[in-house]
Amino acid sequence: MSTAPEADRLARIALNLMAEPGDPQVCALAQEWGAAELRRRLLEPGSEEPGALDVATRLAQADPARQLERAARHGIRFVMPGDAEWPSGLDALAHAGVLSDRGGVPLGLWVRGPIRLDELTSAVAVVGARSATGYGSTTAARIAADLGRAGVPVVSGAAFGIDEAAHRGALSVGGATVAVLACGVDRVYPAAHRDLLEHLAAHGAVISEAPPGWAPMRVRFLARNRIIAALARGTVVVEAASRSGALNTARWSSQLNRETMAVPGSVTSATSEGCHRLIRDGAATLVTTAAEVLELTEPMGRVHPVEEPNPSGPRDRLGTRQRQVLDAVPAVQPAGTESIARTAGIGVREVHDVLTQLLALGLVECADARWRLSHRARARH
Amino acid sequence: MSTAPEADRLARIALNLMAEPGDPQVCALAQEWGAAELRRRLLEPGSEEPGALDVATRLAQADPARQLERAARHGIRFVMPGDAEWPSGLDALAHAGVLSDRGGVPLGLWVRGPIRLDELTSAVAVVGARSATGYGSTTAARIAADLGRAGVPVVSGAAFGIDEAAHRGALSVGGATVAVLACGVDRVYPAAHRDLLEHLAAHGAVISEAPPGWAPMRVRFLARNRIIAALARGTVVVEAASRSGALNTARWSSQLNRETMAVPGSVTSATSEGCHRLIRDGAATLVTTAAEVLELTEPMGRVHPVEEPNPSGPRDRLGTRQRQVLDAVPAVQPAGTESIARTAGIGVREVHDVLTQLLALGLVECADARWRLSHRARARH
Repeated sequence: MSTAPEADRLARIALNLMAEPGDPQVCALAQEWGAAELRRRLLEPGSEEPGALDVATRLAQADPARQLERAARHGIRFVMPGDAEWPSGLDALAHAGVLSDRGGVPLGLWVRGPIRLDELTSAVAVVGARSATGYGSTTAARIAADLGRAGVPVVSGAAFGIDEAAHRGALSVGGATVAVLACGVDRVYPAAHRDLLEHLAAHGAVISEAPPGWAPMRVRFLARNRIIAALARGTVVVEAASRSGALNTARWSSQLNRETMAVPGSVTSATSEGCHRLIRDGAATLVTTAAEVLELTEPMGRVHPVEEPNPSGPRDRLGTRQRQVLDAVPAVQPAGTESIARTAGIGVREVHDVLTQLLALGLVECADARWRLSHRARARH
Repeated sequence: MSTAPEADRLARIALNLMAEPGDPQVCALAQEWGAAELRRRLLEPGSEEPGALDVATRLAQADPARQLERAARHGIRFVMPGDAEWPSGLDALAHAGVLSDRGGVPLGLWVRGPIRLDELTSAVAVVGARSATGYGSTTAARIAADLGRAGVPVVSGAAFGIDEAAHRGALSVGGATVAVLACGVDRVYPAAHRDLLEHLAAHGAVISEAPPGWAPMRVRFLARNRIIAALARGTVVVEAASRSGALNTARWSSQLNRETMAVPGSVTSATSEGCHRLIRDGAATLVTTAAEVLELTEPMGRVHPVEEPNPSGPRDRLGTRQRQVLDAVPAVQPAGTESIARTAGIGVREVHDVLTQLLALGLVECADARWRLSHRARARH
């Protein structure tokens, strides 16, 4: 059943005002029937579902036009499927199933801030423990800053700890960053993050599936996590205790076939346990830098300033003959050229020439016509 | 060609005195033809191989019986394929190929110490960087001690750093531990490990493919690494810089289809880079405890004191109804019973009963007839 766009918008908002974010039935039926038709059926008297009367009452009382107008006065817009700004990554939620009884494509998202959601196609989510360690916060901020420098938006949840560090890291280099909240985008949660949220609303975006005014509740965090994962091309868990909510975001990322990544840490740190388990179970790929994140999330060919992770040593630049001779040089007790030639299985004259080359390269030492590895070469056994 | 065992033994020792440890050609031909036949052919005049004359001369000069007798006087025995003490794990080297131009089943091993090599079937290798951090050394010692307590022998290389910590960890709980050296088992390398090596020779075993008296050389470390990997059911790399020799042992472990494991650490630690790369590339499984090592290396059914890695929280013990209500309780701003009932979609009376149960479980707080999550439940979003 086709509906005029504005009627569809108002129907979606009416349903959004009535249903919990990520209610899998409401999301699925709105996809299947269209929001206007779902709204119409829910308003029909005589539905036999328990609680239907209550739903009908609430739906009848909702005033979506007024809500939309009031939101606009606070700089809040409603972005929904079909809008130019709609982030196409969220459509994958239609087929990603249900986790913790949450799932489906949201009816729409409430958004505050200048970043357009359709500009987040290369975004990476950086999430993790509220009770992060200094190590975790520093690492999250560094990865987010490097992503920001590479022009990749950072998605997170504005919570204490890793989320906060991720947003601040991106902001510190003028990078794009958006926060997805479990409460309305006009609410301040946690209260201590008033400035951060204001800054995000002014320079990035604050996003929620829950209508303005709604409070943060556990079930809404679970619904929120799927939006974070679906907005991003991949999710990095920086620190997570073994039962952290960030693991729910990681599960959504896997469920959506996005890159799921985790940062390792000390084996004695409880806040790294969840990360280690994800990696160990094959649910996440170990990453240590933004460059490694981008290797996994970026389509081939896009150029990024990727750090050189494994600089080649002097040994790699040697020829075969040089390596053969180097391999025959004793580490500690010096040996004569003849002895080295015998071990290497190469003629004495040639060995002498090669040893002289290795000496020039700083790989061997020579005293009293006897040779051994230099300290530098010794360190590479 | 079949040979009397003692003739075979002397032929193997003669070849062992002439060839570099892990010379892939010598090892392969000794397997194929038998050591006596290989020795006979090498002594034949007129071989056209370059250097054959030199080999023949050295082989002719070797006195294996005298070498064996002299070794025995120093408490050193020669263990070879076919001996009751031969560790069967080493036979896999026949089909494991060649790395860094080393490979093959050794002609035999020189052994000093009371542990029999055929008792190492459940052994685990714990190896890593010489320039280990305190974190790495502590972790290696803890894992080795826990392996020792579980009755699992620890194999390592007696080097500074991780190797040393692994041996000492096993010794600290009276566990079995053996060192595989790149030099002769009568030599002390590194010199600072005189006491450690004496202790290992007295209580464990010191093993080498290189004959007594031979010096440590780079090529012998590479040959040695394959013996460490082949003696063990799995290899744990605790710390390794991106070009550490421990990565060569890890490659041998993979090549032998043994469990290859690595311990994570801080992303800023250069000595964890090699471990992170192994895990990231799928070449090693991330492990953080001996229990996790044993999960991977022990055949099913063998009982070990394995720690509980993921204790279940109070939430896991709740019924469906209790969870539904808990999910509807606000995290911060308290809500009345009716509001919670509406969110949960459950009747008010039932919700009140369940809230009282959750209160008793410490999952919610109540003030002025309004409810919110307790601090404990909030930490689990």
